[in-house]
Amino acid sequence: MSKQSKVPYKIYLSEEELPTAWYNIQADLPTPLSPSLSPQTKQPLGPADLTPIFPLDLIKQEVATERSIEIPDEVRELYRTFRPSPLYRAYRLEQALGTPARIYYKYEGNSPSGSHKLNTALPQAYYNRQAGIKRLATETGAGQWGSALSIAAKLFGLECTVYMVKVSYEQKPYRKLLMETYGAEVIPSPSRLTAAGRRILAEHPDSLGSLGIAISEAVEDAASHDDTNYALGSVLNHVILHQTIIGLEAKRQLEKVDEYPDIVIGCCGGGSNFSGISFPFLHDKMRDGRKLRAIAVEPKACPTLTKGKFAYDYGDTAQLTPITKMYTLGHGFVPPGIHAGGLRYHGDSALVSQLYHDGLIEAQAVFQKDVFRNAVFFAQTEGILPAPESAHAISAVVEEALRCKERGEEQVILFCLSGHGHFDLAAYEGYLRDHLEDVDYSEAMVEEGMACLPQVQVG
Amino acid sequence: MSKQSKVPYKIYLSEEELPTAWYNIQADLPTPLSPSLSPQTKQPLGPADLTPIFPLDLIKQEVATERSIEIPDEVRELYRTFRPSPLYRAYRLEQALGTPARIYYKYEGNSPSGSHKLNTALPQAYYNRQAGIKRLATETGAGQWGSALSIAAKLFGLECTVYMVKVSYEQKPYRKLLMETYGAEVIPSPSRLTAAGRRILAEHPDSLGSLGIAISEAVEDAASHDDTNYALGSVLNHVILHQTIIGLEAKRQLEKVDEYPDIVIGCCGGGSNFSGISFPFLHDKMRDGRKLRAIAVEPKACPTLTKGKFAYDYGDTAQLTPITKMYTLGHGFVPPGIHAGGLRYHGDSALVSQLYHDGLIEAQAVFQKDVFRNAVFFAQTEGILPAPESAHAISAVVEEALRCKERGEEQVILFCLSGHGHFDLAAYEGYLRDHLEDVDYSEAMVEEGMACLPQVQVG
Repeated sequence: MSKQSKVPYKIYLSEEELPTAWYNIQADLPTPLSPSLSPQTKQPLGPADLTPIFPLDLIKQEVATERSIEIPDEVRELYRTFRPSPLYRAYRLEQALGTPARIYYKYEGNSPSGSHKLNTALPQAYYNRQAGIKRLATETGAGQWGSALSIAAKLFGLECTVYMVKVSYEQKPYRKLLMETYGAEVIPSPSRLTAAGRRILAEHPDSLGSLGIAISEAVEDAASHDDTNYALGSVLNHVILHQTIIGLEAKRQLEKVDEYPDIVIGCCGGGSNFSGISFPFLHDKMRDGRKLRAIAVEPKACPTLTKGKFAYDYGDTAQLTPITKMYTLGHGFVPPGIHAGGLRYHGDSALVSQLYHDGLIEAQAVFQKDVFRNAVFFAQTEGILPAPESAHAISAVVEEALRCKERGEEQVILFCLSGHGHFDLAAYEGYLRDHLEDVDYSEAMVEEGMACLPQVQVG
Repeated sequence: MSKQSKVPYKIYLSEEELPTAWYNIQADLPTPLSPSLSPQTKQPLGPADLTPIFPLDLIKQEVATERSIEIPDEVRELYRTFRPSPLYRAYRLEQALGTPARIYYKYEGNSPSGSHKLNTALPQAYYNRQAGIKRLATETGAGQWGSALSIAAKLFGLECTVYMVKVSYEQKPYRKLLMETYGAEVIPSPSRLTAAGRRILAEHPDSLGSLGIAISEAVEDAASHDDTNYALGSVLNHVILHQTIIGLEAKRQLEKVDEYPDIVIGCCGGGSNFSGISFPFLHDKMRDGRKLRAIAVEPKACPTLTKGKFAYDYGDTAQLTPITKMYTLGHGFVPPGIHAGGLRYHGDSALVSQLYHDGLIEAQAVFQKDVFRNAVFFAQTEGILPAPESAHAISAVVEEALRCKERGEEQVILFCLSGHGHFDLAAYEGYLRDHLEDVDYSEAMVEEGMACLPQVQVG
């Protein structure tokens, strides 16, 4: 399609055009990832350290260096029930901003789980079923990931146990009910079902839980049952691999209207959404020297990339997970209770961290009041109610689009609208009633966070 | 596409293939509609009776007899932001049922408002803005309609006041917040802002409200302010006209895969969703003698078509609206508190009623426990969580598909999945915890309902 003819509001691909393989950025990294370390020995991890909780196929993907990894037929068939996802041209947003920029967004909110999380939940459930596993255990905070894994487990005939942070379990009954409707067992964490949970409850009978505790419970559950494995919704390399389907599709969709982005933007918590939309374009930047800005957007209250340190740290508070080289605010850091639960993580994916360290991507931190102001603005112009996490990306998009306006630049901006906000209206209420607080991250918090980093010596 | 090649999961139309006109079934009715009557004079309504609350363009559509009514460019442009909606082939449902039937569903839940209601909210807002109106007043119960009108009003630069039944206002805070996010003012009804509201509160200070009261308040608000009109989300002929875009699209989508339905199914409250999916096919039945079963599905607890009487009755409890010939349970009937709020209406659209009376369509009533059992079954196979209203259609689809299985018939079943159930999880909880009750409609209720029908003599 030439630029003369009008680009439609929604650019679709046919199911035949669905990518047949995921893109593995490990093949193209200028600096290979530092090895992850065992939390016990502090020596580089081997597959045997992970087999109690992950199937071998996923462990292999975690360290794979092939550029392209084939999507299994059965997964691709289920992808076809809701993918390729539409790419929207944000005409109304452009008009409302008066910007010469052309804004496109990949919308993942039409998936049955309401976000991009199903893209990795399905292959994770598939590989586990192939390995003879009968049940998956996981944790969930905001609930996006727990919902996605509940659906994927049901579709592959697996049971699913979700340890849900107790405060979310109580405050977000609809998320819990959604998972139950898809057949999952949802357990408020800390629980009496695991040693980790009982230990916490003995000390703090009224504990409202945390993601760190819920991870410990799910990992313990998986490690102590032969037929059960653990599944994680972000951070890990195999999760990010699966999410590249977002960017691979977006690239084909933009080709159809003869466009290529100058800027790619995604919100960034653990990193799977930002990686999903940007990595297939970073491929072109790293391999072909294509000019491209990729911007990861995080909350000011949890500014892992912009204020954290590139260091070895644990993935969880209880120091049960492997030690990974990443940007971190310190595993002891408890982020303030901002309303984008999916972005409240002290660390970041090793892949995103390495790319940021090597100067291949940018990062920005935004205040939540700005985020919700832009979320409401987006809903009132484009119609779709964004998840608070996705609205972090929108904030950066608006800023870039206004910069284009100021300079009269016709840049192409692509972002990922990773999910809808139908289960986040309590957060919108906070904004509409002016109850939200903006929390900035202080130097004292940096120092405190860094004090708990583990001492490791690597090769 | 031949039947040999595999039909995709999702059949799309391009934005260029969006219909340019709505279908007006009044052109093809074997029996023309009986005239509606003024509630004051009980004489046939003239346009002057309606101009205080509706713009002339909509009043004209209410009585138009042309077969085809052009969609204004500005409305069509906004339709393009979320339409044509996808037509899904329900492969996984077919497989789970083991039926030879081929099941297709038109999914309206991807619209920004989450249901089909935006299809009429947009043209209603458009025609009102064209007429110089500044504000729209309406009522909402479950909230689907109020959400759609809030979005449409914002997109056309109108203000929007929604009188929300007080019990829903209190029990469904997320729906209220969604409307507020789109800029609407949401008022719990009965309120002190209208004479009708004050009258109720004087008698019943603790009144939890009803749709009938909320309609009275919205109509009074519109009638007493020059710059304000009233908007209704179902029942009326112009609303149904706008919804025919659903069936018109579905017909083109089925043509693309060389299919034509043997059975078309929709849930039926006021009738706009059922009409939307079925009327373009009923056109073929009435004009070309095409064989087709069209089935309207309603709750056993509010069985307007299957147990009501075809008679003149008021559209609301307070006897403020025009008197219309329709199937009715009596305007004094207060349906039990079943969980499909959109189907709790004592009457039905005049168009659906006339077609049913003339034997051109069928009706079925279903119990809500069966509805939710099928809703959960659908979510676990197809992935999408249906609204309780839409799940009434699913119940009938499952029954027909099993009948096909029994008889070895390869019939084609089309239904409308009118919305998602993201704001209805409290109802799902009722089912999952076995708290739902099935209420059948008794002969005594029929008698009581019929006792309040108005005495009218027409022509």
